[in-house]
Amino acid sequence: MRYFLQFAYQGTHYHGYQVQPNALTVQEVLEEKLAILLGQKMGVVASGRTDTGVHAADQWLHFDYEAALPPNFVYRLNSLLPEDIGIYGLYTPTDPELHARFSAVRRQYRYVIARKKDPLLHRHSLLRTKPLDAAAMQQAARLLFDFEDFASFCKAGGDQHTTLCTIYRSDWEFQQDIWVYRVAANRFLRGMVRAIVGTLLMVGEGKIPPQAVADIIAAKDRSQAGMAAPAEGLFLEKVDYPEGSLLQQPL
Amino acid sequence: MRYFLQFAYQGTHYHGYQVQPNALTVQEVLEEKLAILLGQKMGVVASGRTDTGVHAADQWLHFDYEAALPPNFVYRLNSLLPEDIGIYGLYTPTDPELHARFSAVRRQYRYVIARKKDPLLHRHSLLRTKPLDAAAMQQAARLLFDFEDFASFCKAGGDQHTTLCTIYRSDWEFQQDIWVYRVAANRFLRGMVRAIVGTLLMVGEGKIPPQAVADIIAAKDRSQAGMAAPAEGLFLEKVDYPEGSLLQQPL
Repeated sequence: MRYFLQFAYQGTHYHGYQVQPNALTVQEVLEEKLAILLGQKMGVVASGRTDTGVHAADQWLHFDYEAALPPNFVYRLNSLLPEDIGIYGLYTPTDPELHARFSAVRRQYRYVIARKKDPLLHRHSLLRTKPLDAAAMQQAARLLFDFEDFASFCKAGGDQHTTLCTIYRSDWEFQQDIWVYRVAANRFLRGMVRAIVGTLLMVGEGKIPPQAVADIIAAKDRSQAGMAAPAEGLFLEKVDYPEGSLLQQPL
Repeated sequence: MRYFLQFAYQGTHYHGYQVQPNALTVQEVLEEKLAILLGQKMGVVASGRTDTGVHAADQWLHFDYEAALPPNFVYRLNSLLPEDIGIYGLYTPTDPELHARFSAVRRQYRYVIARKKDPLLHRHSLLRTKPLDAAAMQQAARLLFDFEDFASFCKAGGDQHTTLCTIYRSDWEFQQDIWVYRVAANRFLRGMVRAIVGTLLMVGEGKIPPQAVADIIAAKDRSQAGMAAPAEGLFLEKVDYPEGSLLQQPL
């Protein structure tokens, strides 16, 4: 039987989502606690990885387990997990082959910029108090819709076979002291959101005009884009699976 | 010349606001950075202390300094301060004797309870998923208005000469997954808000009826009240000075 879990985490104290040797990751903690509860070594598959320090407000994983889950499974799992990782939902797929990574149809990220020093947003935002041209940043953000190949925003070393993505959303919401960029696509390349935000910040600072973002993307060359924006402002905000593909189970 | 600063901090990594030997406090960090900027040892007076782990969204202090402040004073102070302490405002008093502690006329706290595990509120809320009787907690909160002597909610060892307080506000706001208690008064006793919340939680859990809170307050005996609620959910939210007593200065 395949189970899907919906969860969230504060990425500050983890070396990213995905298991790696000699560093604590979210996946490692989840697999360890699942093994305690289910009495066997557990492997989990998430919708995608997140980098060191990146947060997730809505992340998904699946795992396969033949027996029925123990009673109060999610409650007990949350009790075992540290306070910076939390499970929100338990689902079963209507198609037994539904896959947390390959079946996800849409991912949305948000990037939070604090325009004024706000200690209560420390580690949940990038602090950037210098003047930024909001209109230019908005204009540049919308240029993403004109493209499908985002090789210029792809960090080397990813395992993707293609650099094609379909952008569903790319816009800034400017509140007084907090600026939020949201981007949604069918898939994202390695380091893509942070490279986009880093480039949009160059536009905001007046280092390049908005239209230059189109040239950067067209160049299909990572060295053309801006520096990756720091991880602390980035949140995986929403992952969607095909409608009707998941049945919510009691926690 | 007396100056007032409006500031905020995340209390997680500090042993409270007030300077103490052998432990890092918010006051110590502020005084150290002010001394760097102003070139002399600086003492500051805040509106009040907060306990270890308690946050402040709106805290105030004053300091006396004879010369004019250096240009871009607040900007430079924020650059020296760590990310979990931030200055929001600079003011001068219309009355040179205005005092950050003794002249404050109203203080408001909020206490945040997460009703569902929310990793993004980790260290900014108390996690309490068990059933709680919201109506009983609201009823008990309102009983505070009937009293002036809150000795039952006063931790031993405070330096207050009286246990009289005038309550201006005491109510719960129940959102779906987040419950927020707000209490405002002319002054608070040592440990008072956490003792109130601990007692209201006993009511919510059905351990005591709402009306028992009146008996507890009337007893004027700290041992009658509930355990202090943990610091991590508590925020100093607002401090008021007499209208017109402070003139905002450019940062």
